[in-house]
Amino acid sequence: MGTIHGLGLGPGDPDLMSLRAARLLGQARHVAYFRKAGREGQARRIVEGLIPGEAAEIPMEYPVTTEIPFDDPQYNKVLSAFYADCSARLRALAEAGEDVVVLCEGDPFFYGSFMHLYTRLHGAVRVEVVPGITGMSAAWTATGQPVTWGDDVLSVLPATLPEEALARGIAGADALVFMKITAHLNKLRRVLEAAGRLEDAWLVQNAAMPEQAVLPLRNFPGNKTPYFSIVVVHGQGRRP
Amino acid sequence: MGTIHGLGLGPGDPDLMSLRAARLLGQARHVAYFRKAGREGQARRIVEGLIPGEAAEIPMEYPVTTEIPFDDPQYNKVLSAFYADCSARLRALAEAGEDVVVLCEGDPFFYGSFMHLYTRLHGAVRVEVVPGITGMSAAWTATGQPVTWGDDVLSVLPATLPEEALARGIAGADALVFMKITAHLNKLRRVLEAAGRLEDAWLVQNAAMPEQAVLPLRNFPGNKTPYFSIVVVHGQGRRP
Ligand SMILES: C[S@@+](CC[C@H](N)C(=O)[O-])C[C@H]1O[C@@H](n2cnc3c(N)ncnc32)[C@H](O)[C@@H]1O
Ligand SMILES: C[S@@+](CC[C@H](N)C(=O)[O-])C[C@H]1O[C@@H](n2cnc3c(N)ncnc32)[C@H](O)[C@@H]1O
Repeated sequence: MGTIHGLGLGPGDPDLMSLRAARLLGQARHVAYFRKAGREGQARRIVEGLIPGEAAEIPMEYPVTTEIPFDDPQYNKVLSAFYADCSARLRALAEAGEDVVVLCEGDPFFYGSFMHLYTRLHGAVRVEVVPGITGMSAAWTATGQPVTWGDDVLSVLPATLPEEALARGIAGADALVFMKITAHLNKLRRVLEAAGRLEDAWLVQNAAMPEQAVLPLRNFPGNKTPYFSIVVVHGQGRRP
Repeated sequence: MGTIHGLGLGPGDPDLMSLRAARLLGQARHVAYFRKAGREGQARRIVEGLIPGEAAEIPMEYPVTTEIPFDDPQYNKVLSAFYADCSARLRALAEAGEDVVVLCEGDPFFYGSFMHLYTRLHGAVRVEVVPGITGMSAAWTATGQPVTWGDDVLSVLPATLPEEALARGIAGADALVFMKITAHLNKLRRVLEAAGRLEDAWLVQNAAMPEQAVLPLRNFPGNKTPYFSIVVVHGQGRRP
């Protein structure tokens, strides 16, 4: 029986991969990764030039769901069938004695697509997860300011949430990280303004990637930002 | 002018160090780290056997503060003088043209002691931070369950906080991580019980270290757990 490795590759710079991830990748014979149809996929992009020549690549292309409303049960059904299909493919390889490496952006267990394979494969075949540096670690590092001090509470909030849920999540926290903010900047600015935190909010685009940019959120125009964007509000806790 | 590198070493296993951290360490001529008097220090322990033979080690020993109450202004004063002193030492080296590597457990900007040097050195000399895999990533990886799904909100809470602050922080969140829990297990169990989350809470000791242990929090007796302990409550959000 082979092993399926969920490889956390870190936030973008291949230099931020762990020694373990780099070694497993360097020995890999089967390298799987998610991507949108017609795109390279961020996880694949991180390891450009690092996949052994003799390894087989297994791109797993997300089904196109843009025509199905997000809250339509059909949406979940299509995705679920897709993940079941990918899992079956990897499982067959593992059952044939082959190890498979699945490339994951950031940390696999932190809002990662790999989790949908993991829940389907775990128990049936051997699955090992290599944690990775998260996108948010790269984002706060890029701001040049520590994110949490002393007893600071950090809240990590998907910007996809409704305004009231975001407001609730902000209320009990000192430091804030917003993920998945692509087309939610107006909402974010409103919620942060209402909480008196907009002045301290930084928009980090493409952290640890060549196109990295750090900007005060209040100055950034419009509602849209690249997929790899995070908003950070630093904690201000105790510091001797 | 030399550069001071805050090196995130990750949660414990040297294999989880980033390629960049490993390279900077391998080239280092001055290696600084915090430790308690008479102890090796966790950051130093991670790199055992990996510091170049010709490098000079700079242990920075925390002053003994056990006799000063935590909320006595004297406590902050002693620590502040200590950090100023360490910073001056590293700054002198950088000004003499030497690069210095400062070893940091986990990610340097996430509740790390290095932040207290960073704020004092930043602007005066060149300081570069290498992010690292956090202890919490290693902790949720150790539980074998993804921590955040879909729109889950994650709250990271220092268990040192008073009970009401913890309750507030838990209220708006789906997934929970408690840090700095050493002698706060009774309080944590009370707060989690009141929030109906105790059944789902996992205590992870020494994640990614040889002594790693994962236990249901409700079964773990007593108020004390090792310094490197984290409690994780997983989110249960949308999963196709
Ligand atoms: C599906 S989640 C995956 C998170 C990833 N597993 C991690 O550990 O960071 C994708 C979101 O993560 C954030 N993200 C991940 N890496 C990033 C980076 N390098 N720069 C900016 N944002 C990033 C963005 O908010 C993006 O919408
Ligand atoms: C001063 S904070 C430093 C956090 C570190 N900079 C990080 O990124 O994880 C120390 C706390 O982190 C947590 N921690 C860090 N690494 C850990 C590990 N490997 N296992 C368990 N807990 C850990 C513990 O709760 C500990 O009390």
